[in-house]
Amino acid sequence: MGVGKAKVEFVKYQGLGNDFLLVDNRDRSEPSISPEQAAKLCDRNFGVGGDGVIFVLPGKDGADYTMRIYNSDSSEPEMCGNGIRCMAKFVADLEQASGSKAYTINTLAGPIKPVLRDDGQVVVDMGPPILKAADIPTTLKPTREDGSVVAAPLEVDGLTWAVTCVSMGNPHCITFGCVGAEEGLKVSEIPLAHIGPLFERNAVFPARINTEFVEVVSRTRLKMRVWERGAGPTLACGTGACALLVAAVLEGRAERTCTVELPGGPLEIEWRESDNRVYMTGPAEAVFEGIAQVND
Amino acid sequence: MGVGKAKVEFVKYQGLGNDFLLVDNRDRSEPSISPEQAAKLCDRNFGVGGDGVIFVLPGKDGADYTMRIYNSDSSEPEMCGNGIRCMAKFVADLEQASGSKAYTINTLAGPIKPVLRDDGQVVVDMGPPILKAADIPTTLKPTREDGSVVAAPLEVDGLTWAVTCVSMGNPHCITFGCVGAEEGLKVSEIPLAHIGPLFERNAVFPARINTEFVEVVSRTRLKMRVWERGAGPTLACGTGACALLVAAVLEGRAERTCTVELPGGPLEIEWRESDNRVYMTGPAEAVFEGIAQVND
Repeated sequence: MGVGKAKVEFVKYQGLGNDFLLVDNRDRSEPSISPEQAAKLCDRNFGVGGDGVIFVLPGKDGADYTMRIYNSDSSEPEMCGNGIRCMAKFVADLEQASGSKAYTINTLAGPIKPVLRDDGQVVVDMGPPILKAADIPTTLKPTREDGSVVAAPLEVDGLTWAVTCVSMGNPHCITFGCVGAEEGLKVSEIPLAHIGPLFERNAVFPARINTEFVEVVSRTRLKMRVWERGAGPTLACGTGACALLVAAVLEGRAERTCTVELPGGPLEIEWRESDNRVYMTGPAEAVFEGIAQVND
Repeated sequence: MGVGKAKVEFVKYQGLGNDFLLVDNRDRSEPSISPEQAAKLCDRNFGVGGDGVIFVLPGKDGADYTMRIYNSDSSEPEMCGNGIRCMAKFVADLEQASGSKAYTINTLAGPIKPVLRDDGQVVVDMGPPILKAADIPTTLKPTREDGSVVAAPLEVDGLTWAVTCVSMGNPHCITFGCVGAEEGLKVSEIPLAHIGPLFERNAVFPARINTEFVEVVSRTRLKMRVWERGAGPTLACGTGACALLVAAVLEGRAERTCTVELPGGPLEIEWRESDNRVYMTGPAEAVFEGIAQVND
Protein backbone atom coordinates (compact mmCIF):
# COMPACT_ATOMS: atom_id res chain seq x y z
CA MET A 1 0.00 0.00 0.00
CA GLY A 2 1.50 3.32 -1.02
CA VAL A 3 0.93 5.76 1.82
CA GLY A 4 2.76 8.87 0.62
CA LYS A 5 1.55 12.26 1.79
CA ALA A 6 -1.63 12.23 3.81
CA LYS A 7 -3.78 14.64 5.74
CA VAL A 8 -4.80 13.14 9.06
CA GLU A 9 -7.79 14.28 11.08
CA PHE A 10 -7.60 13.26 14.72
CA VAL A 11 -8.85 13.95 18.21
CA LYS A 12 -6.41 13.72 21.11
CA TYR A 13 -7.71 11.92 24.20
CA GLN A 14 -5.89 11.32 27.46
CA GLY A 15 -6.45 9.03 30.42
CA LEU A 16 -4.39 9.91 33.50
CA GLY A 17 -1.99 11.77 31.25
CA ASN A 18 -1.40 8.81 28.91
CA ASP A 19 -2.32 10.44 25.59
CA PHE A 20 -3.37 9.15 22.18
CA LEU A 21 -4.33 10.59 18.81
CA LEU A 22 -7.60 8.90 17.80
CA VAL A 23 -8.24 8.46 14.09
CA ASP A 24 -11.61 7.53 12.60
CA ASN A 25 -10.89 4.73 10.09
CA ARG A 26 -14.36 3.19 10.13
CA ASP A 27 -14.39 3.29 6.32
CA ARG A 28 -11.12 1.34 5.91
CA SER A 29 -9.70 -2.11 6.57
CA GLU A 30 -6.20 -0.93 7.51
CA PRO A 31 -4.85 2.13 9.40
CA SER A 32 -4.69 5.19 7.13
CA ILE A 33 -1.06 5.95 7.99
CA SER A 34 2.04 3.81 8.46
CA PRO A 35 3.76 3.05 11.81
CA GLU A 36 6.61 5.38 10.77
CA GLN A 37 4.17 8.22 10.03
CA ALA A 38 2.50 7.58 13.39
CA ALA A 39 5.89 7.86 15.11
CA LYS A 40 6.46 11.24 13.42
CA LEU A 41 3.00 12.43 14.50
CA CYS A 42 3.81 11.37 18.08
CA ASP A 43 7.03 13.39 18.25
CA ARG A 44 6.30 16.04 20.88
CA ASN A 45 8.55 18.74 19.39
CA PHE A 46 8.51 18.18 15.63
CA GLY A 47 5.05 16.56 15.43
CA VAL A 48 1.68 16.71 17.18
CA GLY A 49 2.81 14.77 20.25
CA GLY A 50 1.33 11.68 21.87
CA ASP A 51 2.12 8.28 23.38
CA GLY A 52 0.52 6.56 20.37
CA VAL A 53 -1.99 6.73 17.50
CA ILE A 54 -5.17 4.63 17.81
CA PHE A 55 -7.15 3.69 14.70
CA VAL A 56 -10.87 2.84 14.87
CA LEU A 57 -11.57 0.22 12.19
CA PRO A 58 -14.76 -1.75 11.45
CA GLY A 59 -15.49 -4.73 13.74
CA LYS A 60 -15.29 -8.38 12.71
CA ASP A 61 -16.97 -11.56 14.01
CA GLY A 62 -19.76 -9.65 15.72
CA ALA A 63 -17.53 -7.03 17.39
CA ASP A 64 -18.48 -3.35 17.15
CA TYR A 65 -15.04 -2.08 16.20
CA THR A 66 -11.42 -3.07 15.74
CA MET A 67 -8.66 -1.19 17.55
CA ARG A 68 -5.11 -0.89 16.22
CA ILE A 69 -2.40 1.09 18.00
CA TYR A 70 0.93 2.35 16.71
CA ASN A 71 3.17 3.53 19.55
CA SER A 72 5.44 6.58 19.43
CA ASP A 73 8.37 4.24 18.71
CA SER A 74 6.39 2.77 15.72
CA SER A 75 5.89 -0.59 17.47
CA GLU A 76 2.42 -2.15 17.62
CA PRO A 77 1.31 -3.35 21.08
CA GLU A 78 -1.36 -6.03 21.43
CA MET A 79 -3.48 -3.97 23.80
CA CYS A 80 -3.31 -0.93 26.08
CA GLY A 81 -5.58 -0.38 29.08
CA ASN A 82 -5.44 3.42 29.02
CA GLY A 83 -5.74 3.39 25.22
CA ILE A 84 -8.89 1.29 25.11
CA ARG A 85 -10.61 3.67 27.55
CA CYS A 86 -9.82 6.54 25.16
CA MET A 87 -11.07 4.42 22.25
CA ALA A 88 -14.41 3.70 24.00
CA LYS A 89 -14.91 7.40 24.69
CA PHE A 90 -14.00 8.34 21.11
CA VAL A 91 -16.45 5.90 19.50
CA ALA A 92 -19.21 7.08 21.85
CA ASP A 93 -18.42 10.66 20.77
CA LEU A 94 -18.43 9.60 17.09
CA GLU A 95 -21.81 7.89 17.57
CA GLN A 96 -23.03 10.83 19.65
CA ALA A 97 -24.14 8.14 22.12
CA SER A 98 -25.37 9.23 25.53
CA GLY A 99 -25.70 7.30 28.78
CA SER A 100 -23.99 4.01 29.52
CA LYS A 101 -22.85 1.80 26.67
CA ALA A 102 -20.97 -1.49 26.29
CA TYR A 103 -18.69 -2.21 23.32
CA THR A 104 -16.96 -5.28 22.00
CA ILE A 105 -13.66 -4.30 20.42
CA ASN A 106 -11.30 -6.54 18.48
CA THR A 107 -7.67 -6.14 19.53
CA LEU A 108 -4.55 -8.11 18.70
CA ALA A 109 -4.95 -9.59 22.23
CA GLY A 110 -8.49 -10.79 21.40
CA PRO A 111 -11.89 -9.15 21.99
CA ILE A 112 -12.09 -6.63 24.85
CA LYS A 113 -15.38 -5.30 26.24
CA PRO A 114 -15.05 -1.79 27.67
CA VAL A 115 -18.14 -0.34 29.31
CA LEU A 116 -18.74 3.41 29.21
CA ARG A 117 -20.62 4.35 32.38
CA ASP A 118 -23.19 7.11 32.89
CA ASP A 119 -20.60 9.24 34.69
CA GLY A 120 -18.21 9.09 31.73
CA GLN A 121 -15.77 6.67 33.38
CA VAL A 122 -14.81 3.57 31.42
CA VAL A 123 -14.61 0.05 32.89
CA VAL A 124 -12.20 -2.42 31.27
CA ASP A 125 -11.91 -6.15 32.03
CA MET A 126 -8.15 -6.69 32.36
CA GLY A 127 -8.43 -10.48 32.74
CA PRO A 128 -7.28 -12.77 35.56
CA PRO A 129 -3.94 -12.20 37.32
CA ILE A 130 -1.13 -14.71 36.75
CA LEU A 131 0.55 -15.69 40.00
CA LYS A 132 2.78 -18.75 39.40
CA ALA A 133 6.43 -17.74 39.76
CA ALA A 134 7.55 -19.40 36.53
CA ASP A 135 4.78 -17.64 34.57
CA ILE A 136 5.63 -14.13 35.88
CA PRO A 137 8.56 -14.96 35.22
CA THR A 138 10.68 -14.84 38.36
CA THR A 139 13.21 -17.25 39.88
CA LEU A 140 12.17 -16.19 43.40
CA LYS A 141 11.06 -19.21 45.43
CA PRO A 142 7.28 -19.49 45.77
CA THR A 143 6.05 -18.72 49.28
CA ARG A 144 2.66 -20.40 48.87
CA GLU A 145 1.50 -23.83 47.78
CA ASP A 146 -0.17 -22.49 44.64
CA GLY A 147 3.27 -21.43 43.37
CA SER A 148 2.82 -17.72 44.02
CA VAL A 149 5.44 -15.33 45.42
CA VAL A 150 3.83 -13.26 48.20
CA ALA A 151 5.80 -11.00 50.55
CA ALA A 152 9.04 -12.80 49.68
CA PRO A 153 12.35 -11.29 50.78
CA LEU A 154 14.44 -9.67 48.02
CA GLU A 155 17.78 -7.91 48.51
CA VAL A 156 18.00 -4.66 46.55
CA ASP A 157 20.47 -1.85 47.25
CA GLY A 158 21.47 -3.27 50.64
CA LEU A 159 17.90 -3.54 51.95
CA THR A 160 15.63 -6.60 52.25
CA TRP A 161 12.34 -5.73 50.56
CA ALA A 162 9.14 -7.79 50.89
CA VAL A 163 7.90 -8.33 47.32
CA THR A 164 4.85 -9.91 45.70
CA CYS A 165 4.96 -10.85 42.03
CA VAL A 166 1.94 -10.59 39.71
CA SER A 167 1.63 -10.72 35.92
CA MET A 168 -1.26 -8.99 34.14
CA GLY A 169 0.15 -10.11 30.78
CA ASN A 170 3.32 -8.21 31.73
CA PRO A 171 5.40 -8.80 34.86
CA HIS A 172 5.12 -6.74 38.04
CA CYS A 173 6.96 -6.75 41.36
CA ILE A 174 5.02 -4.98 44.14
CA THR A 175 6.42 -3.86 47.46
CA PHE A 176 4.83 -2.24 50.50
CA GLY A 177 8.22 -1.84 52.21
CA CYS A 178 11.09 -3.76 53.78
CA VAL A 179 10.74 -7.07 55.62
CA GLY A 180 9.87 -6.42 59.27
CA ALA A 181 9.46 -2.65 58.79
CA GLU A 182 7.12 -1.18 61.41
CA GLU A 183 5.97 1.68 59.25
CA GLY A 184 4.64 1.54 55.70
CA LEU A 185 6.28 3.21 52.71
CA LYS A 186 5.96 6.93 52.03
CA VAL A 187 5.96 6.79 48.23
CA SER A 188 6.96 10.45 47.91
CA GLU A 189 10.27 9.55 49.59
CA ILE A 190 11.25 6.65 47.28
CA PRO A 191 14.43 7.48 45.26
CA LEU A 192 12.79 6.03 42.15
CA ALA A 193 15.47 6.92 39.59
CA HIS A 194 18.09 5.18 41.73
CA ILE A 195 16.22 2.12 42.91
CA GLY A 196 13.88 1.45 39.97
CA PRO A 197 16.67 0.23 37.65
CA LEU A 198 18.07 -2.00 40.42
CA PHE A 199 14.75 -3.84 40.63
CA GLU A 200 14.30 -3.86 36.83
CA ARG A 201 17.68 -5.49 36.19
CA ASN A 202 17.68 -7.84 39.19
CA ALA A 203 18.76 -11.35 38.21
CA VAL A 204 15.62 -12.92 39.72
CA PHE A 205 13.54 -11.37 36.90
CA PRO A 206 14.72 -12.95 33.62
CA ALA A 207 12.31 -10.81 31.51
CA ARG A 208 13.07 -7.73 33.67
CA ILE A 209 10.25 -6.24 35.74
CA ASN A 210 7.90 -3.33 36.34
CA THR A 211 8.07 -2.27 39.99
CA GLU A 212 5.30 -0.64 42.05
CA PHE A 213 6.05 1.02 45.38
CA VAL A 214 2.81 1.20 47.34
CA GLU A 215 1.61 3.23 50.31
CA VAL A 216 -1.50 1.95 52.12
CA VAL A 217 -3.60 5.02 52.87
CA SER A 218 -6.53 2.87 54.02
CA ARG A 219 -7.99 -0.57 53.24
CA THR A 220 -9.72 0.96 50.19
CA ARG A 221 -7.12 3.55 49.11
CA LEU A 222 -3.62 2.77 47.87
CA LYS A 223 -1.04 5.23 46.54
CA MET A 224 1.66 4.15 44.10
CA ARG A 225 4.69 5.17 42.16
CA VAL A 226 5.89 2.99 39.32
CA TRP A 227 9.16 2.26 37.55
CA GLU A 228 8.17 0.83 34.16
CA ARG A 229 10.42 -1.67 32.41
CA GLY A 230 12.13 0.18 29.55
CA ALA A 231 10.26 3.44 30.24
CA GLY A 232 11.18 4.56 33.77
CA PRO A 233 8.78 6.57 35.90
CA THR A 234 5.43 7.08 34.15
CA LEU A 235 2.23 8.92 35.04
CA ALA A 236 -0.07 5.92 34.68
CA CYS A 237 0.52 2.19 34.39
CA GLY A 238 -2.89 0.51 34.20
CA THR A 239 -1.63 -3.07 34.49
CA GLY A 240 0.53 -1.95 37.43
CA ALA A 241 -2.50 -0.57 39.28
CA CYS A 242 -4.27 -3.92 38.72
CA ALA A 243 -1.23 -5.95 39.82
CA LEU A 244 -0.74 -4.01 43.04
CA LEU A 245 -4.40 -4.37 44.05
CA VAL A 246 -4.03 -8.14 43.65
CA ALA A 247 -0.82 -8.03 45.73
CA ALA A 248 -2.52 -5.94 48.44
CA VAL A 249 -5.38 -8.46 48.67
CA LEU A 250 -2.97 -11.43 48.76
CA GLU A 251 -1.02 -9.77 51.58
CA GLY A 252 -4.24 -8.97 53.47
CA ARG A 253 -3.66 -5.22 53.31
CA ALA A 254 -6.74 -4.09 51.36
CA GLU A 255 -10.28 -4.91 50.22
CA ARG A 256 -10.94 -6.36 46.76
CA THR A 257 -12.14 -2.98 45.48
CA CYS A 258 -9.87 0.02 45.96
CA THR A 259 -9.03 3.45 44.64
CA VAL A 260 -5.44 3.39 43.41
CA GLU A 261 -3.79 6.81 43.20
CA LEU A 262 -1.28 6.95 40.33
CA PRO A 263 0.89 10.01 39.64
CA GLY A 264 -1.52 10.91 36.76
CA GLY A 265 -4.70 10.49 38.84
CA PRO A 266 -6.92 7.80 40.42
CA LEU A 267 -8.20 4.49 39.04
CA GLU A 268 -10.83 2.23 40.63
CA ILE A 269 -9.60 -1.36 40.64
CA GLU A 270 -11.67 -4.44 41.51
CA TRP A 271 -10.39 -8.03 41.73
CA ARG A 272 -13.76 -9.76 41.42
CA GLU A 273 -14.17 -12.88 43.54
CA SER A 274 -16.86 -14.43 41.31
CA ASP A 275 -14.78 -14.66 38.13
CA ASN A 276 -11.20 -14.02 39.35
CA ARG A 277 -10.84 -11.18 36.82
CA VAL A 278 -9.51 -7.65 37.45
CA TYR A 279 -11.66 -4.66 36.41
CA MET A 280 -10.14 -1.23 35.93
CA THR A 281 -12.34 1.89 35.90
CA GLY A 282 -10.96 5.25 34.93
CA PRO A 283 -11.31 8.45 32.94
CA ALA A 284 -10.73 9.29 29.29
CA GLU A 285 -11.07 12.85 28.07
CA ALA A 286 -11.03 14.58 24.71
CA VAL A 287 -8.33 17.29 24.73
CA PHE A 288 -8.50 18.80 21.25
CA GLU A 289 -9.19 18.06 17.61
CA GLY A 290 -6.70 18.71 14.86
CA ILE A 291 -5.61 18.20 11.28
CA ALA A 292 -2.00 17.39 10.46
CA GLN A 293 -0.08 16.78 7.27
CA VAL A 294 2.09 13.67 7.40
CA ASN A 295 4.88 12.88 5.00
CA ASP A 296 6.81 9.67 4.49
CA MET B 1 -11.30 40.56 32.22
CA GLY B 2 -13.32 37.40 32.81
CA VAL B 3 -11.75 34.64 30.77
CA GLY B 4 -13.80 31.58 31.82
CA LYS B 5 -14.26 28.78 29.31
CA ALA B 6 -12.93 29.44 25.87
CA LYS B 7 -12.48 27.61 22.60
CA VAL B 8 -9.04 28.29 21.16
CA GLU B 9 -8.14 27.88 17.51
CA PHE B 10 -4.43 27.57 16.95
CA VAL B 11 -1.73 26.40 14.56
CA LYS B 12 1.36 24.73 15.98
CA TYR B 13 4.67 25.85 14.44
CA GLN B 14 8.14 24.63 15.30
CA GLY B 15 11.62 25.96 14.66
CA LEU B 16 14.39 23.41 15.30
CA GLY B 17 11.97 21.54 17.57
CA ASN B 18 11.15 24.58 19.71
CA ASP B 19 7.35 24.54 19.37
CA PHE B 20 4.61 27.12 19.84
CA LEU B 21 0.84 27.31 19.51
CA LEU B 22 0.08 30.39 17.38
CA VAL B 23 -3.22 32.18 18.04
CA ASP B 24 -4.72 34.78 15.73
CA ASN B 25 -5.76 37.68 18.01
CA ARG B 26 -5.65 40.39 15.32
CA ASP B 27 -9.15 41.48 16.40
CA ARG B 28 -8.22 41.97 20.07
CA SER B 29 -6.04 44.19 22.25
CA GLU B 30 -5.10 41.46 24.78
CA PRO B 31 -4.40 37.71 24.46
CA SER B 32 -7.63 35.70 24.32
CA ILE B 33 -6.59 33.33 27.10
CA SER B 34 -4.81 33.78 30.43
CA PRO B 35 -1.22 32.74 31.24
CA GLU B 36 -2.62 29.91 33.39
CA GLN B 37 -4.81 28.65 30.53
CA ALA B 38 -1.79 28.83 28.22
CA ALA B 39 0.20 26.72 30.69
CA LYS B 40 -2.57 24.09 30.64
CA LEU B 41 -2.61 24.11 26.82
CA CYS B 42 1.17 23.62 26.83
CA ASP B 43 1.05 20.52 29.08
CA ARG B 44 2.27 17.72 26.82
CA ASN B 45 0.21 14.95 28.46
CA PHE B 46 -2.98 16.61 29.70
CA GLY B 47 -3.06 19.45 27.14
CA VAL B 48 -2.08 20.11 23.51
CA GLY B 49 1.64 20.40 24.23
CA GLY B 50 4.08 23.17 23.39
CA ASP B 51 6.91 25.32 24.71
CA GLY B 52 4.62 28.37 24.68
CA VAL B 53 1.57 30.10 23.22
CA ILE B 54 2.16 33.09 20.90
CA PHE B 55 -0.58 35.65 20.34
CA VAL B 56 -0.69 37.83 17.21
CA LEU B 57 -2.19 41.20 18.18
CA PRO B 58 -2.57 44.41 16.14
CA GLY B 59 0.56 46.56 15.75
CA LYS B 60 1.10 49.95 17.38
CA ASP B 61 3.26 52.97 16.49
CA GLY B 62 3.61 51.92 12.86
CA ALA B 63 4.43 48.26 13.55
CA ASP B 64 2.63 45.54 11.60
CA TYR B 65 1.80 43.34 14.59
CA THR B 66 2.36 42.89 18.31
CA MET B 67 3.69 39.60 19.69
CA ARG B 68 2.91 38.33 23.17
CA ILE B 69 4.17 34.98 24.47
CA TYR B 70 3.05 32.95 27.46
CA ASN B 71 5.49 30.17 28.28
CA SER B 72 4.54 26.67 29.40
CA ASP B 73 5.28 27.74 33.00
CA SER B 74 2.84 30.72 32.57
CA SER B 75 5.67 33.27 32.64
CA GLU B 76 5.87 35.97 29.94
CA PRO B 77 9.30 36.38 28.31
CA GLU B 78 10.26 39.65 26.65
CA MET B 79 11.24 38.00 23.38
CA CYS B 80 12.12 34.61 21.91
CA GLY B 81 14.26 34.12 18.82
CA ASN B 82 12.73 30.81 17.76
CA GLY B 83 9.25 32.11 18.61
CA ILE B 84 9.49 35.23 16.46
CA ARG B 85 10.51 33.11 13.44
CA CYS B 86 7.33 31.06 13.96
CA MET B 87 5.33 34.28 14.35
CA ALA B 88 6.69 35.72 11.06
CA LYS B 89 5.77 32.50 9.22
CA PHE B 90 2.31 32.43 10.80
CA VAL B 91 1.42 36.01 9.84
CA ALA B 92 2.65 35.39 6.28
CA ASP B 93 0.37 32.31 6.18
CA LEU B 94 -2.54 34.36 7.59
CA GLU B 95 -1.94 37.05 4.94
CA GLN B 96 -1.41 34.37 2.30
CA ALA B 97 1.71 36.36 1.43
CA SER B 98 4.17 34.90 -1.04
CA GLY B 99 7.81 35.72 -1.68
CA SER B 100 10.05 37.63 0.68
CA LYS B 101 8.53 39.94 3.25
CA ALA B 102 9.78 42.14 6.12
CA TYR B 103 7.73 42.75 9.25
CA THR B 104 8.02 45.11 12.17
CA ILE B 105 6.71 43.42 15.29
CA ASN B 106 6.23 45.00 18.71
CA THR B 107 7.58 42.86 21.55
CA LEU B 108 8.11 43.57 25.24
CA ALA B 109 11.81 43.94 24.28
CA GLY B 110 10.98 46.65 21.73
CA PRO B 111 10.34 46.42 17.98
CA ILE B 112 11.89 43.44 16.16
CA LYS B 113 12.13 43.19 12.37
CA PRO B 114 12.07 39.59 11.13
CA VAL B 115 12.50 39.08 7.41
CA LEU B 116 10.83 36.13 5.70
CA ARG B 117 13.06 35.09 2.79
CA ASP B 118 12.04 33.60 -0.55
CA ASP B 119 13.23 30.18 0.58
CA GLY B 120 10.97 30.24 3.65
CA GLN B 121 13.80 30.85 6.12
CA VAL B 122 13.39 33.73 8.56
CA VAL B 123 16.14 36.24 9.44
CA VAL B 124 16.02 37.88 12.88
CA ASP B 125 18.22 40.74 14.13
CA MET B 126 19.28 39.56 17.60
CA GLY B 127 21.09 42.82 18.46
CA PRO B 128 24.72 43.47 19.45
CA PRO B 129 26.59 41.08 21.76
CA ILE B 130 27.46 42.26 25.28
CA LEU B 131 31.06 41.44 26.21
CA LYS B 132 32.06 43.33 29.37
CA ALA B 133 32.53 40.85 32.24
CA ALA B 134 30.40 42.81 34.72
CA ASP B 135 27.53 43.02 32.21
CA ILE B 136 27.46 39.26 31.44
CA PRO B 137 27.63 38.97 34.54
CA THR B 138 30.75 37.05 35.52
CA THR B 139 33.43 37.61 38.14
CA LEU B 140 36.06 36.05 35.84
CA LYS B 141 38.93 38.49 35.27
CA PRO B 142 38.79 40.17 31.85
CA THR B 143 41.49 38.94 29.48
CA ARG B 144 41.29 41.90 27.08
CA GLU B 145 41.47 45.66 27.46
CA ASP B 146 37.82 46.14 26.41
CA GLY B 147 36.77 44.22 29.54
CA SER B 148 35.84 41.01 27.74
CA VAL B 149 36.56 37.46 28.92
CA VAL B 150 38.04 35.48 26.00
CA ALA B 151 39.57 32.01 26.36
CA ALA B 152 39.96 32.50 30.10
CA PRO B 153 40.86 29.50 32.29
CA LEU B 154 38.02 28.11 34.44
CA GLU B 155 38.30 25.06 36.72
CA VAL B 156 35.27 22.79 36.44
CA ASP B 157 35.16 19.14 37.53
CA GLY B 158 38.95 18.93 37.91
CA LEU B 159 39.71 20.22 34.40
CA THR B 160 40.84 23.68 33.28
CA TRP B 161 38.47 24.80 30.52
CA ALA B 162 39.11 27.78 28.23
CA VAL B 163 35.91 29.84 28.31
CA THR B 164 34.59 32.94 26.53
CA CYS B 165 31.64 34.85 27.99
CA VAL B 166 28.99 36.57 25.84
CA SER B 167 25.57 37.96 26.71
CA MET B 168 22.83 38.20 24.06
CA GLY B 169 20.45 39.63 26.67
CA ASN B 170 21.02 36.40 28.62
CA PRO B 171 24.39 35.09 29.80
CA HIS B 172 26.44 32.47 27.95
CA CYS B 173 29.72 30.69 28.65
CA ILE B 174 31.26 29.13 25.53
CA THR B 175 34.03 26.56 25.48
CA PHE B 176 35.94 24.89 22.65
CA GLY B 177 37.83 22.64 25.09
CA CYS B 178 40.44 22.63 27.83
CA VAL B 179 43.36 25.08 28.07
CA GLY B 180 46.27 23.75 26.01
CA ALA B 181 44.31 20.84 24.54
CA GLU B 182 45.76 19.73 21.20
CA GLU B 183 42.49 18.40 19.86
CA GLY B 184 39.14 20.15 19.75
CA LEU B 185 36.02 18.96 21.53
CA LYS B 186 33.88 16.10 20.22
CA VAL B 187 30.50 17.37 21.37
CA SER B 188 28.91 13.93 21.18
CA GLU B 189 31.28 12.83 23.95
CA ILE B 190 30.47 15.61 26.46
CA PRO B 191 28.79 14.23 29.63
CA LEU B 192 26.29 17.09 29.53
CA ALA B 193 24.01 16.01 32.38
CA HIS B 194 27.03 15.78 34.68
CA ILE B 195 29.03 18.82 33.65
CA GLY B 196 26.25 21.25 32.63
CA PRO B 197 25.07 21.86 36.21
CA LEU B 198 28.67 22.35 37.40
CA PHE B 199 29.08 25.24 34.93
CA GLU B 200 25.57 26.60 35.62
CA ARG B 201 26.14 26.81 39.39
CA ASN B 202 29.79 27.91 39.29
CA ALA B 203 30.44 30.79 41.70
CA VAL B 204 31.98 32.96 38.94
CA PHE B 205 28.47 33.33 37.38
CA PRO B 206 26.31 35.23 39.89
CA ALA B 207 23.18 35.02 37.66
CA ARG B 208 24.05 31.40 36.70
CA ILE B 209 24.91 30.64 33.07
CA ASN B 210 23.96 28.92 29.83
CA THR B 211 26.88 26.82 28.59
CA GLU B 212 27.70 25.92 24.98
CA PHE B 213 30.19 23.16 24.15
CA VAL B 214 31.41 23.73 20.61
CA GLU B 215 33.13 21.57 18.01
CA VAL B 216 34.81 23.39 15.11
CA VAL B 217 33.96 21.37 12.00
CA SER B 218 35.43 24.07 9.71
CA ARG B 219 35.85 27.85 9.76
CA THR B 220 32.22 28.18 8.59
CA ARG B 221 30.62 25.24 10.39
CA LEU B 222 30.32 24.85 14.15
CA LYS B 223 28.53 22.10 16.06
CA MET B 224 27.14 22.67 19.55
CA ARG B 225 25.42 21.14 22.51
CA VAL B 226 23.90 23.40 25.12
CA TRP B 227 23.05 23.22 28.80
CA GLU B 228 20.40 25.89 29.36
CA ARG B 229 20.12 27.66 32.70
CA GLY B 230 17.06 26.24 34.47
CA ALA B 231 16.15 24.00 31.54
CA GLY B 232 19.02 21.57 30.99
CA PRO B 233 19.83 20.17 27.56
CA THR B 234 17.54 21.65 24.88
CA LEU B 235 17.14 21.11 21.14
CA ALA B 236 17.66 24.72 20.14
CA CYS B 237 18.95 27.78 21.96
CA GLY B 238 18.91 30.68 19.49
CA THR B 239 20.78 33.15 21.69
CA GLY B 240 23.32 30.41 22.43
CA ALA B 241 24.02 29.90 18.72
CA CYS B 242 24.57 33.66 18.36
CA ALA B 243 26.80 33.83 21.45
CA LEU B 244 29.02 30.98 20.34
CA LEU B 245 29.55 32.48 16.88
CA VAL B 246 30.72 35.69 18.55
CA ALA B 247 33.04 33.64 20.80
CA ALA B 248 34.42 31.71 17.81
CA VAL B 249 35.20 34.97 16.00
CA LEU B 250 36.80 36.52 19.11
CA GLU B 251 39.01 33.42 19.52
CA GLY B 252 39.92 33.48 15.81
CA ARG B 253 38.39 30.07 15.16
CA ALA B 254 35.72 30.96 12.56
CA GLU B 255 34.47 33.44 9.99
CA ARG B 256 31.81 36.03 10.86
CA THR B 257 29.13 33.99 9.03
CA CYS B 258 28.74 30.34 9.96
CA THR B 259 26.32 27.45 9.99
CA VAL B 260 25.75 26.41 13.60
CA GLU B 261 24.47 22.86 14.04
CA LEU B 262 22.21 22.61 17.08
CA PRO B 263 20.69 19.29 18.25
CA GLY B 264 17.35 20.38 16.62
CA GLY B 265 18.92 21.41 13.29
CA PRO B 266 21.09 24.14 11.70
CA LEU B 267 20.95 27.93 12.02
CA GLU B 268 22.88 30.46 9.92
CA ILE B 269 24.49 33.05 12.20
CA GLU B 270 26.19 36.26 11.07
CA TRP B 271 27.99 38.75 13.31
CA ARG B 272 27.89 41.70 10.93
CA GLU B 273 30.98 43.92 10.97
CA SER B 274 29.17 47.05 9.69
CA ASP B 275 26.68 47.34 12.56
CA ASN B 276 28.09 44.96 15.24
CA ARG B 277 24.70 43.14 15.34
CA VAL B 278 24.09 39.39 15.22
CA TYR B 279 21.65 38.01 12.61
CA MET B 280 20.08 34.59 13.01
CA THR B 281 18.50 32.80 10.03
CA GLY B 282 16.50 29.64 10.47
CA PRO B 283 13.38 27.63 9.71
CA ALA B 284 9.83 27.78 11.04
CA GLU B 285 7.26 25.22 9.97
CA ALA B 286 3.54 24.72 10.47
CA VAL B 287 2.91 21.30 12.04
CA PHE B 288 -0.87 21.12 12.46
CA GLU B 289 -3.97 23.16 13.14
CA GLY B 290 -6.31 22.47 16.02
CA ILE B 291 -9.18 23.58 18.20
CA ALA B 292 -9.02 23.08 21.96
CA GLN B 293 -11.37 23.83 24.83
CA VAL B 294 -9.65 25.61 27.72
CA ASN B 295 -11.08 25.89 31.20
CA ASP B 296 -9.99 28.06 34.10
